[in-house]
Amino acid sequence: MPSLSSKDSSLDFPLQEYLQSRRIAVESALNRYIPDVNEPPEKLYESMRYSVLAPGKRLRPILAIAAAEAIGGSIDQVIPTACALECIHAFSLIHDDLPCMDNDNYRRGLPTNHRVFGDAMALLAGDALLTLAFQLIVENSCEIPAERLLPIVHLIARASGTRGMVGGQVADMEAEGKPVEKETLMFIHAHKTGALLSASVQAGAIIAGATEEQQNAISAYGEHVGLAFQIADDVLDVTGDENLIGKPVGSDQERGKATFPSLFGLDESRRIAQKEMEAALNCLNIFDNQSDPLRAIARFIVDRNL
Amino acid sequence: MPSLSSKDSSLDFPLQEYLQSRRIAVESALNRYIPDVNEPPEKLYESMRYSVLAPGKRLRPILAIAAAEAIGGSIDQVIPTACALECIHAFSLIHDDLPCMDNDNYRRGLPTNHRVFGDAMALLAGDALLTLAFQLIVENSCEIPAERLLPIVHLIARASGTRGMVGGQVADMEAEGKPVEKETLMFIHAHKTGALLSASVQAGAIIAGATEEQQNAISAYGEHVGLAFQIADDVLDVTGDENLIGKPVGSDQERGKATFPSLFGLDESRRIAQKEMEAALNCLNIFDNQSDPLRAIARFIVDRNL
Repeated sequence: MPSLSSKDSSLDFPLQEYLQSRRIAVESALNRYIPDVNEPPEKLYESMRYSVLAPGKRLRPILAIAAAEAIGGSIDQVIPTACALECIHAFSLIHDDLPCMDNDNYRRGLPTNHRVFGDAMALLAGDALLTLAFQLIVENSCEIPAERLLPIVHLIARASGTRGMVGGQVADMEAEGKPVEKETLMFIHAHKTGALLSASVQAGAIIAGATEEQQNAISAYGEHVGLAFQIADDVLDVTGDENLIGKPVGSDQERGKATFPSLFGLDESRRIAQKEMEAALNCLNIFDNQSDPLRAIARFIVDRNL
Repeated sequence: MPSLSSKDSSLDFPLQEYLQSRRIAVESALNRYIPDVNEPPEKLYESMRYSVLAPGKRLRPILAIAAAEAIGGSIDQVIPTACALECIHAFSLIHDDLPCMDNDNYRRGLPTNHRVFGDAMALLAGDALLTLAFQLIVENSCEIPAERLLPIVHLIARASGTRGMVGGQVADMEAEGKPVEKETLMFIHAHKTGALLSASVQAGAIIAGATEEQQNAISAYGEHVGLAFQIADDVLDVTGDENLIGKPVGSDQERGKATFPSLFGLDESRRIAQKEMEAALNCLNIFDNQSDPLRAIARFIVDRNL
């Protein structure tokens, strides 16, 4: 813990500039990786690009980049994996929005993928983005040794499947409209959002050659930040500005979704998010100021919302 | 080419016994890899198991095993990758059957996944099987060097995505009900079925440590066998026994699907399949009789149907 007199350099960190420059790097790489081709199947590429290149925070890729930088790695090393994480995120959004799932017509103010390309194409664009993620990592990380890349493939696959995102999605679906206990809510959040956010920082750290101690610290940071993010998102759904959150305020409640505010109330939810953010910051104590972006991101995730 | 007097040992190969023993090995491993757990999300595991353990030929895993054996590899080495290929195959069937795709109620005489578990769970079970494939390969192939496994991840991801199965599915969908030229039909078959069949033998060969020459031979074998298989399947759809093929005879024609018989007629389709089978056999000339299973499979794929 820094003493009261010592200045925490991350408080002055120019986060907005950082986020913007990393976002541009990610988007320009995604644009290269999914070329705007004139070769078949054109419609599939178009549908994939529509979703993956739609405006977004690029939180997962930026977390991967920031984690790599905290270890002394470079953007170039980590960008293929960062883009893979965004592909997986986009795949999950496309499938979540489908009529047989949430049946959403809009995402961040734009018509959802299936509203533009039809349900079948949206389904396949999601599938293709999921496989592209693994293809990207291997195809574009040629300077990273195979012994480092293979655990990343495993980490990301695990965080996306039954023990991660898909598992959380199923638990969320099954809990809808039912009274939900804290344990279930934590399971849903840890799996549906937390797993991939945590995998993002872990992947970045591994690529940059983190020691086991560093990996553990980064991984714990990822879990706390993941939970803080989800609580903040839940709070935003109640208190937020529709234009900012990109969906109607109160839509979780309308669906009878389990959320932190519905279980703990707004104030207690804010308090838990704050505690998670502080726990995340504590995990970074072993790092020097190269981890300032991670620190600033943790604060931002909670403060922007609450 | 073997001379007329030399005996081709693969003609006597006990293929049925071979297929059965390898099928049992694959199914028992799949059963282990997707445990019948009592942990959440139980319904998701149940839905995945329903499809991946439903009776099937296990053609892709068996091709991977046979290719590994042709190079001198063992079943144990290749079984995680073999199971991964079956997971990807099962994922593609579940998604293909969904109402927004082919809207099929039955597959091989059993209700399709979404008819039993609902559309949302079927969608997610497919997603989970696709990610599980990559997880399985890394998690269970611990004795295979990372430099061998990583290209396999790439190969399988590529064969499943835009440049493989999903790409072929889109092309197939777009061609439905339209007059189709030979080039489009070849594109559809090469991508939709051929890519993963070819990736199966390639993956098996790489795991077993194939030289580049061996990999190229096996890969070419895979492409010919993949095409022969698809033509034979098209022919079966016209001439087959409904009980054997597991779907109503003539269902492709009913949907206005592009097929070899619709483009070339039955006799010419049979002739092309036969030629592809012979080409596949020729690719195996550099191997000794350890590749007899691959030879016998190539013959079987065409002969069972025609």
